[in-house]
Amino acid sequence: MGERIQTPSGTAPARRMSPERDKQSRITLRDVAERAGVHPGTASRALMPATRELVNAKTAERVMEAAAALGYRPNPIARGLKTNRSHAIGVVIPDLTNPLFPPMVRGIQDRLERDAYTPLIANTDNDPDREIADFEAMRDRQVDGFISATARSAQGMLASLESLDRPVVLVNRRLEGSGLRTVAVNDYLGARLAVNHLIGLGHSRIAHLGGPQDLSTGHERRRGFVDAMRAAGIEPDPSLMPAGSAFIESEGARLCAQVLDLASPPTAVVAGNDLMALGCYELFADRGVRCPERISVVGFNDMPFAEWFNPPMTTIRIPHYAVGSRAAELVLALLRGGFSAGAGEAQILLEPELIVRGSTSGPDPSS
Amino acid sequence: MGERIQTPSGTAPARRMSPERDKQSRITLRDVAERAGVHPGTASRALMPATRELVNAKTAERVMEAAAALGYRPNPIARGLKTNRSHAIGVVIPDLTNPLFPPMVRGIQDRLERDAYTPLIANTDNDPDREIADFEAMRDRQVDGFISATARSAQGMLASLESLDRPVVLVNRRLEGSGLRTVAVNDYLGARLAVNHLIGLGHSRIAHLGGPQDLSTGHERRRGFVDAMRAAGIEPDPSLMPAGSAFIESEGARLCAQVLDLASPPTAVVAGNDLMALGCYELFADRGVRCPERISVVGFNDMPFAEWFNPPMTTIRIPHYAVGSRAAELVLALLRGGFSAGAGEAQILLEPELIVRGSTSGPDPSS
Repeated sequence: MGERIQTPSGTAPARRMSPERDKQSRITLRDVAERAGVHPGTASRALMPATRELVNAKTAERVMEAAAALGYRPNPIARGLKTNRSHAIGVVIPDLTNPLFPPMVRGIQDRLERDAYTPLIANTDNDPDREIADFEAMRDRQVDGFISATARSAQGMLASLESLDRPVVLVNRRLEGSGLRTVAVNDYLGARLAVNHLIGLGHSRIAHLGGPQDLSTGHERRRGFVDAMRAAGIEPDPSLMPAGSAFIESEGARLCAQVLDLASPPTAVVAGNDLMALGCYELFADRGVRCPERISVVGFNDMPFAEWFNPPMTTIRIPHYAVGSRAAELVLALLRGGFSAGAGEAQILLEPELIVRGSTSGPDPSS
Repeated sequence: MGERIQTPSGTAPARRMSPERDKQSRITLRDVAERAGVHPGTASRALMPATRELVNAKTAERVMEAAAALGYRPNPIARGLKTNRSHAIGVVIPDLTNPLFPPMVRGIQDRLERDAYTPLIANTDNDPDREIADFEAMRDRQVDGFISATARSAQGMLASLESLDRPVVLVNRRLEGSGLRTVAVNDYLGARLAVNHLIGLGHSRIAHLGGPQDLSTGHERRRGFVDAMRAAGIEPDPSLMPAGSAFIESEGARLCAQVLDLASPPTAVVAGNDLMALGCYELFADRGVRCPERISVVGFNDMPFAEWFNPPMTTIRIPHYAVGSRAAELVLALLRGGFSAGAGEAQILLEPELIVRGSTSGPDPSS
């Protein structure tokens, strides 16, 4: 591009536009070290964000100035071999087209970029075999660490993750008793906020359309539902608490039909997430059930554009971007050795927030 | 993970769970070649998807079987140094949280993964400086090729891309006269479909709220609008054709206000994209204008969940996922040398489709 390449003596070599140019005129780490008057090892440490703090701040400054003046470009592949660092972080998510993930991934990308790290992203489609293949492919690419949004409690994931011998941070989902660093949202509290909102509107016959119970997001939200109902003096009716096999529209529609068909149907529904709430919308449209007049619905996530749905969706907002950037922060800290390997306290739980829109109102007095 | 590591002689080394295990018991390419009875160079070519076709198919099969039996894992960093291939493709997009991009990126990922390539994704936020920095950072990471969704006609991007000396494929946006390989949608045709739909409903006073005119997506849609109007015998009114500075909600709302405030306002609007159409919805809500009764709106893209908006959005569907996977296909073909460097014919234009929903109807007879 437009950068000016100068030799240490100050004479600019002729620019060649051939593919060979970079190789032939490449400024080496040795050139930078010489100009800064330091040992090449010091220059190397000063130039890498991960090791910069090992170098005296003024020296690091001088090295970076020398590198900028010379137009020095490190060769990351060669550097990877020497330092055993690829400066890449594997990010494993179920599906980038699930609206939950783009803002989370964006938070990860932006934070990693500040430290010159790059995410490698893989989609597992919640398929455990693909998940393991993705982790192995990334290990083979020598990623320095992992951020995973795919934790599930019912399988051997924990052992797999531990055998990776790299820092691992879980996002969104937690793995009970694993001691793995996690950045997630307080799902339990989020479900309580949803229930308390509906009880405040006058509802008491409230259904919970749960997500998969082997995922922390599924069982924590259900636990919050049960405890909030009991705290309000209402014993939850098990027939109003079906759980689905996935956090998707069709499961929301299926479970919603199940509770609407009961002899004594609910006047309000807490859905496992926004997509399951959209499944309820779908069923209401099919059956001509008016929302919120006949039945209220609360989602979970506050997915993008939820304010434009018909009706605009009342939901629990989670800070997607912050979850991602905090997870990236944590994995970078682990790479710098900022956390000892044994300590298990680094479970960061971010707070959810109730967003009241048009899908909830008081119960229909005629029902 | 659970794979069984065997030495060529068939005795399994003791498993060590320390981080050193992989290094100490690593099966080398030489081991694989020996077991398959081929030269190590042949084994190397057979194991890399990009060079496999250079090897006799039966030989390649035998090498892959040997590699599987031995649990061979190539060291991609060392391999990158030798072959000058990183097996990574730089993917530069404006913003992952724009709903247009996740399905496109997913198409890219899935196709690259089949050939054991990985995408490195960067967000430019449409900032030209950040764009150049992203390209340089990826070049420094020695990516083998680029897929870019950020082409704009008004700047030196073309020269920058050419100086990269790597295969480049543009997606979504085109760069006129550049000869760069492109996978895009026929924006011109899409706008014509929108206009013809509205004319078919009886509209004739139709506005076009354009996107940025220095982007192919902006000017091609506008050109399609003008030609479709003229083909129907209507000379487009320049006061009904403002253009915005970005494809975002606020620009849609601003331009919509501009045309509604005319002495003779339109009865229908073709928006530059779905987000600009949502900006129209926003303005209608503010002013109490009923859509589609008082005014019809057509979006562009068919963003996820557009069927759940209020009203459900009539729009032009573009095959996001296919755009991504075709672009990945093209960059892989360029890497295999399947296209000669000079040929400029590889401009793939995919067909858009009109999706009629609730935001369009015949004009209000009272207006």
